[in-house]
Amino acid sequence: MSALTFSLQGYSLSPAKFKAKLRDFEVIIDEPQNLGGTDEAPNPVEYLLASYAGCLNVVGHLIAKEQGIELKGLQIKINGDLNPDKLFGKSTNDRAGFQGLRVTLIPDTDAGVEQLAEWLQIVESRCPVNDNLLRSTPIRVSVEKNFKDINQVFSLN
Amino acid sequence: MSALTFSLQGYSLSPAKFKAKLRDFEVIIDEPQNLGGTDEAPNPVEYLLASYAGCLNVVGHLIAKEQGIELKGLQIKINGDLNPDKLFGKSTNDRAGFQGLRVTLIPDTDAGVEQLAEWLQIVESRCPVNDNLLRSTPIRVSVEKNFKDINQVFSLN
Repeated sequence: MSALTFSLQGYSLSPAKFKAKLRDFEVIIDEPQNLGGTDEAPNPVEYLLASYAGCLNVVGHLIAKEQGIELKGLQIKINGDLNPDKLFGKSTNDRAGFQGLRVTLIPDTDAGVEQLAEWLQIVESRCPVNDNLLRSTPIRVSVEKNFKDINQVFSLN
Repeated sequence: MSALTFSLQGYSLSPAKFKAKLRDFEVIIDEPQNLGGTDEAPNPVEYLLASYAGCLNVVGHLIAKEQGIELKGLQIKINGDLNPDKLFGKSTNDRAGFQGLRVTLIPDTDAGVEQLAEWLQIVESRCPVNDNLLRSTPIRVSVEKNFKDINQVFSLN
């Protein structure tokens, strides 16, 4: 299969709140009050966890099927620590983002420990979001000064 | 400020659909039909774009305020190409995740080009999600075999 392109377009509703359009879906992102928002939706780094968990779910089921493992259910927990000092411009040696992520996969299955270890290794190697977090992702950011009327923003090319 | 901990817990609704709880918020992640889902919500890598855009919005406004730039609005576009061959276990030299991300920030402002270039440089350096994508994030994944009743999953510690 050739590469698929995924796209987002959106605009700020406030300094902390953002409306994103992804195909026909709209997603609201906000911040809790202690991070300057109105707490109407998950915050950006929480959506990062949701992205990762959703990806592990898809790939987890795909690999289980390939291995002949019956996966009757899958629960996922993810935790990550983040020091906001860098974000807020305070002096710190910590990085801006999550210092690391701790992931627990809890499959409902009769598969044995060895088979699950192999499952986990393959899931990690083939999960797109795991790859983008674990290995550097090239990013090109540019600034344009052609701000459009807000009613046109969702038809931007 | 000491590090903040962000947490997710959730469970699969189907092989492609996942329900995530982030504090009091619930987020549904699905896949389009061509990737094996029922297309009821954005997919994992689209939430990754939403996470990144929401973060750029917050940090963009924060830095503008610090610089004395009046930001009357901010529109963001992000595109990324992803070859799903690795995900599907086909032979490929491509990575599993986004090969790269192209970001366009469109601020509604009277600030000049030089000031916006400085703004962009600081935004990139202090945006948590930018950091986690651009630089490797340590990840520890473990598998547990203590699957809980689905009604208990949101009280897992």
